[in-house]
Parts: sequence; C-alpha cells; structure tokens
Amino acid sequence: MSSLNEITHIDNIKLSEDGKKVIIIDQTKLPNITEYLTLESDKDLYDAILELKVRGAPAIGICAGYGIYILAQQIKAETYDDFYRKFAGYKNYLNSSRPTAVNLSWALNRMEGVVTANKEKSIGDILYLLGEECRAIHEEDIKMCKAISEYGLSLVKDGDGIFTHCNAGPLATSRYGTALGPLFLGKERGLSFKVFADETRPLLQGARLTSYELEKAGIDVTLICDNMASIVMKNGWIKVCFMGCDRIAANGDAANKIGTSGVAILAKYYGIPFYVFGPTSTIDLNCKTGEDIKIELRDPKEIKEKFYKDPMALKEVKCYNPAFDVTDHNLITGIVTEKGICCPPFEASIKALFLKDSRIV
Amino acid sequence: MSSLNEITHIDNIKLSEDGKKVIIIDQTKLPNITEYLTLESDKDLYDAILELKVRGAPAIGICAGYGIYILAQQIKAETYDDFYRKFAGYKNYLNSSRPTAVNLSWALNRMEGVVTANKEKSIGDILYLLGEECRAIHEEDIKMCKAISEYGLSLVKDGDGIFTHCNAGPLATSRYGTALGPLFLGKERGLSFKVFADETRPLLQGARLTSYELEKAGIDVTLICDNMASIVMKNGWIKVCFMGCDRIAANGDAANKIGTSGVAILAKYYGIPFYVFGPTSTIDLNCKTGEDIKIELRDPKEIKEKFYKDPMALKEVKCYNPAFDVTDHNLITGIVTEKGICCPPFEASIKALFLKDSRIV
Repeated sequence: MSSLNEITHIDNIKLSEDGKKVIIIDQTKLPNITEYLTLESDKDLYDAILELKVRGAPAIGICAGYGIYILAQQIKAETYDDFYRKFAGYKNYLNSSRPTAVNLSWALNRMEGVVTANKEKSIGDILYLLGEECRAIHEEDIKMCKAISEYGLSLVKDGDGIFTHCNAGPLATSRYGTALGPLFLGKERGLSFKVFADETRPLLQGARLTSYELEKAGIDVTLICDNMASIVMKNGWIKVCFMGCDRIAANGDAANKIGTSGVAILAKYYGIPFYVFGPTSTIDLNCKTGEDIKIELRDPKEIKEKFYKDPMALKEVKCYNPAFDVTDHNLITGIVTEKGICCPPFEASIKALFLKDSRIV
Repeated sequence: MSSLNEITHIDNIKLSEDGKKVIIIDQTKLPNITEYLTLESDKDLYDAILELKVRGAPAIGICAGYGIYILAQQIKAETYDDFYRKFAGYKNYLNSSRPTAVNLSWALNRMEGVVTANKEKSIGDILYLLGEECRAIHEEDIKMCKAISEYGLSLVKDGDGIFTHCNAGPLATSRYGTALGPLFLGKERGLSFKVFADETRPLLQGARLTSYELEKAGIDVTLICDNMASIVMKNGWIKVCFMGCDRIAANGDAANKIGTSGVAILAKYYGIPFYVFGPTSTIDLNCKTGEDIKIELRDPKEIKEKFYKDPMALKEVKCYNPAFDVTDHNLITGIVTEKGICCPPFEASIKALFLKDSRIV
C-alpha cells in the first residue's frame, strides 16, 4: 500500500470484531505515537469525545453511532419502554460531551430514530437494526467524503497554493476527508498542490494532524503559525482557502474551529476565494443564523499549559478559550457538500440542496 | 513599592556598577523564572539579541548602546584609526544579529557618530563620551515612553476594551513601554481597562510577557490564542488596538511582530481603530514603503519544538517562520510617537514630525 493509500485508509474509528467495542486512534497522541484505544463504557466514549481523542465533526458522528450501538447492547431491559428509557439516557449523556458540532446529535438522533421506528420489534431485532444503522452512517460518510472531494477538486488546478486551518482530513472523517479531500484525490490523479497548514492553537490539530497526514501522503505542505496567514496571503502564495465546518446555519453562517472567521476575513481582504466543506448532515436548518449556534468554551489550561514543559503564563492570568467561531456567510465563496457546491445566496442554495435525492451514487 | 511600580521600574537592561558589563533580565525564562544575565563579550551580546533574551525594538536599541560601549572599553588600540576599525567591527557584528528592528542600527549608528565626531580626542575621552551617549539613549527612552504613553492615553477612556499583540511594555522598552504604556499610566491615574492579549506564537511574548506585566500590575487582562482575535472583536469587546512596531517606512507602512497585519485587517473589518506605537527612532525614512523592510526568517524549531515536551509536527514537515510582517499604512488609524500622533496621510504627517524639535520636554 502506498503511503497515500495508508493515510486515506487509516482506521481512525471502527467496531471491534465482536461488535461490542469501539476502537479509535487516539488523536491527542499524534504525531508522535499512533495508539489505538478501545472504548467500552459510556464514560470511555464521553471522555474520548470531550478530550478530542476522536475529533472532527464527521468522525464524532461516526464514533457516536458506533458508541450508542455498543451501549445499547449493554442495556438490561425486559420491555421496550425500559430499553428506550435507558437508550435515551445514554444518548443524552453522549450528546452533552460537545455542543457545537451538529454531527454528534445528528448521528445520535438517527440511531434513536431506529429505536422509535421499531418499537413493535424485539429488543434483539432493534439491536440488529442499530448495528446496521451505525455501519451505514460510516459507509455513507466514506461515499460522502469521496463526493465532496470530487466537487472540491473542481475548484483547483495543478500547482495551486491552498490554505487550510485545523484538520478536515482522513482522521476527522472517513477516507479522503472533507476540506483536505481534494488534495488527496488530486494527488492520486497526479496533481501537485502547495498546501499551507496553520498549526491551529491551542490544540494544534493543524500541526499534529494536518501536516502529518499531508506529509505522510507525499503532498507538499508548509506549516505556519496561525498569525502567519496574512503574510502568506500577501506573499501571493494562496489561490484558495479550504476549510471544514462543524455546523452550518440555514443562512450559510458556518461554525468551525476557532480562527476560521479570521482566515475568512483575511481571504476577503486579499481577494482569495474561501470555501467551507461539510456534508449536508452538518447543515442545521434549526439554526436560522450563526447567532443560534452554541460555542463551546474550554479549559484555560489548554492555552497556558497543555503540551508545554512549563506553564506559559502566570497561574492567575485568566483566559478566554472558545473552541469555535462562526464565519459570516458574506465571507464564504461556497459551501462544498456531497450533493454539490452551494453558492450565495445561501438561504436559497441550501434549501435547494435538500430537495435533491438524499442518496449519493 | 506597589506592584504597578515594580513593573514600570523593572530593571530589564542596565550597566553594571563598574560600567564594564551589561545586565539584562533573560526574557526567554519569563514568566516562570526571573533570571539576570551578565553580558561581557561580543558573542554574549549577539546571542542575547538573536535568542530574544533581550527583545522589543527600543530595548534592543538600549542594549546595543550599552553593549557597544562595554566592547569599546575592551578594545586595545594605540591609534584612533585602529580603535575605530575595531569599533566598526563590533558594530557590524552586533548589527547583524537581527535585521528588522531599526532601533538596533539606530543606536549603533548613534554610538558610532560619537566616535567619528571626536576623532581628535583621546581614546579615553571617546570612551567617556560613549558612556554618556549610551546612558543618554536609555534616559531618552524613558522620557520617550512616558510621552508616548500620554499621547496613547488620550485615545482611550475608562473601561475600554483594548487589544494588544506581542509585547510592547516595560520589558521591551524602558519603564512604561510604548503600546502598553497608556495602560500602566492609566492604571496609575485610577482608570480601568479590559485588555485582551494574544499569546503571539511562536515565541509567546503575549502569554509570557504581556499577560505577566499586566497581571502583576493589577490590570485586567485576558489571554487568548492568536486565532481568537476575530471572535473577541465580533463579541464587541474591543474598542481599540494598540500595537508596537519595529520599523516604520516613510509612507507609514509598519513592520511589527508577525501577526500584526492580520489583526489590522480584522480591526478594519470590524471598524475598530488600530494604532501603532513607536518612538521616532523607529521611523526609517530610508525605507520608502514596507517593501523595503527586510523580514527576518527564523528557525522552524521555534514552531515545532520550542517550549514543548514533545515535537508537535513530524521532523520532515517544513515550516515558514517569519518573525515580522508589514502592516499596510491604509490599515493604520494613527502612529503614536513621543512627539505626537501621526494621522493619514502618513507621508506628510511623518515628515512634519521630523520638523519638530527633537527634544522631549
């Protein structure tokens, strides 16, 4: 297997052979250590998501699907009502691990839908159907990533300089990834890109994961600090920005890793197209605008202490540590989904997307 | 002495009592350790500047003045020509330590001017005059910082939210600092500000030095990552941006710590005034525009390894690590100097500045 294939077929999330455990790569240990974790309990799953051992909106959805499936198998219940009550308890617990990425609740709601749609069936049958459903979520994600990558590839040409933030590659999804998908697909087809990945403080997903994936796949990548986006754009090195997303509102406002909105403003200033990549499952029509998207606030220790030998600020200094920000739809050139690319006005183009056949061929 | 006074009177650079050594606080050890270093040789001085043990454009100038003075005392020469040749050798060596901040060459040129203007005098007399000159550079910097702080304070009012990047406080200058000067001076006068300091990757001057100085002085400071500037501005928390600078071109383009231009673009987008603070010694009329300013490129290890327990990217991943960027004059609301605030059009207002009396009263 080529090194490119190794990355686009990385086993970041899977069910164990007996179907009773979830096995993930611990993304917090990369790039230094590739360690697989076995998740068995509700707390294992909750902590893995909270602590970003599994991260990336689509990957969280896949993990949640498998996770609620293995927990459902552990439920001891004689009646459907008892089963459902316990299932809903697990669902709400997992769903509370991180608030911003919609894929978490999307996957859990989808799994819950299997339970409620089959209340006449035996618990054994429901468990069987849950197993089918979580595998389907994963399979669909693989197809979704491929389709997104194809659409994204239509936006660039050989030799282009591409800016990306955080990580929306194979580790965050399945196979190709979303925003990084066109780069891997292009590489397969003999195209070369010059990618600039920012490190993405405070958790360094750009340094630890994106530059790792691209370098391993033999794609030209240059790592920069987040505050160097302006100079690389000014230098004329960037043709386009490709970013992932965690939740898209009905008007096209997009929540993604903290810093995304800043890159979008710089891109606008320098006249560089700015694309957001996400499956339609990332679109939340219940959010009218970005104002409705809840932004997760995280521990100040991530800024002051994590990864360091010594603390980088006094203990008493306070921090503001939002994990995401919302990019205004006016700053977005297009939203790349598995069903096509939405262009402004987004309210209309997003609506049109949902009228399309939901199956990807 | 109050904690505010302790910070605004911090002994960051001084001559030893015998006048033969330069003593600095090692800024790379802060905030965890306050360690004083004694610099005696040309290599000590070169390395201290290169490795940012002493940093901040005005502080580099002060250190270079004292530095060339102690080296001049070490020169063994019978004739003026021999003395001057060796003096110029030291000067060129120190001047090559960092290219972007103009204050380094400004201070060294000023010291050289003392030598060449007094070639008829004895070497002993020249050494005496050099001692006077480097002390004068330091004394003038103290007055300059106070004057800049007064001008800066006129731009804000009690309760304002202020954004700053990198460190332009007491450690980078003398006493009050430049961009942080109005905050300390305002605090002395009973005003309260809410300061947002970004950490300033890769060397974390914002986290390690700015938040340290402000917290110690009892000023309300919140530390954020560089990529959080957009969200704090969007949240409506920032009334004004106060930034230092390392070299200002004749048209008002300003080189400062990497990331400054990005903050300026965000400020423009959100309609927030953006001020650059620097003494007139930072203005380099030999640079017509920012295009003429040489940008220092530094070691990739600063991005991938420095401060960390383990490397944060694969060894083979390449980095681009510019230490500065240039902020276009169109993005700057005003340049705050010790002689007043220059407003656009800068070409004219900067010229007018140099027509003023050069002494600060």
